[in-house]
Amino acid sequence: MLCLQVKTDAAWANEAIRDLDSVLIDHAHCELKAASSATSLVARFAFIPEIARALSEIAREELEHFERVLAFLQHRKIALAPPEIDLYAKELRSSIASLPSPGQTPLVDRLLVGALIEARSCERFKLLLTALEESGSEDRELAEFYRDLFECEARHYRVYVDLAVLVATDRAFVEGRLELLAQREGQIVARLATEKARATVHG
Amino acid sequence: MLCLQVKTDAAWANEAIRDLDSVLIDHAHCELKAASSATSLVARFAFIPEIARALSEIAREELEHFERVLAFLQHRKIALAPPEIDLYAKELRSSIASLPSPGQTPLVDRLLVGALIEARSCERFKLLLTALEESGSEDRELAEFYRDLFECEARHYRVYVDLAVLVATDRAFVEGRLELLAQREGQIVARLATEKARATVHG
Repeated sequence: MLCLQVKTDAAWANEAIRDLDSVLIDHAHCELKAASSATSLVARFAFIPEIARALSEIAREELEHFERVLAFLQHRKIALAPPEIDLYAKELRSSIASLPSPGQTPLVDRLLVGALIEARSCERFKLLLTALEESGSEDRELAEFYRDLFECEARHYRVYVDLAVLVATDRAFVEGRLELLAQREGQIVARLATEKARATVHG
Repeated sequence: MLCLQVKTDAAWANEAIRDLDSVLIDHAHCELKAASSATSLVARFAFIPEIARALSEIAREELEHFERVLAFLQHRKIALAPPEIDLYAKELRSSIASLPSPGQTPLVDRLLVGALIEARSCERFKLLLTALEESGSEDRELAEFYRDLFECEARHYRVYVDLAVLVATDRAFVEGRLELLAQREGQIVARLATEKARATVHG
């Protein structure tokens, strides 16, 4: 799906719907981190108004998603615990930082890391909403929510890739780089899948 | 106005409308910083959903304001330069960090610093919109924008104070603390006014 090179194991969704509370808590933190990361990118790209605006809009949408996850948590009477260390994002960033990266590449990479995280969220939300629907879950609102988010993350993915092309001014370079980064992302996801104690959005 | 203890000198607004470009650039960065700071507070208060939601809404509004300032900058064909060091926010935070602060006070202080910054923005935007109107500026949209923002910042100010009361569970304590912090803020504003080379939203 999208640029992803490693498919999430089907077992992930079963595990996720068995422990939806944990998934929702993790998801709330993911939205906040996505908002915070997009906001910091706005400042980084402030000198290119088209990019700054697109990132600011993404940040606003992530905050709105956070508020929607929060409503589901409140409805389930679950308090949002402090975030755990996000191994997926941490390892993704450090793995990519170790790659040779000439010229503007680090800036392009920041956008492509955004694209990859959106792509993985998109894939996971699709699995989750299918599992929710097939399990005959009564929580139709939650399935609807994940359908909305699935579409939204796919759109964010495309925005991040387009912004990277705008910065690099070279689509072929961006596509090659994205493929390389997606290999790294796939290795991390495959490894974390065997290590994680419970289902999380990305790990 | 609101909790402020030191009034901005009337000369500020004249200086500001003589160099609106600089004010708009500074203003864009202020909105981004406000969004980023509200988003980081959401994570800090994630365990109290009412507070987390209110702060997330503030963050979204700040991003929207940023996008509106960006539109004015684009219309004027001004590129957004990288931010200068924000002496006002830096000195405000370090001045307050030096105060004795028992128990939950540091957390309450973070919200009250938010309140103070909103109060000062509110005061400045009022001065600016009055000056724009009185100067017979043709830029009615800009005056309208600052009227919107003036109202919005006043609302944010009240939200931050209310959230501080919710955390401290003691309105009298919060009012006393706000008065103390506002004294510090006033001293900083008074000093920066004599040092600043050009008009900025807060300094």
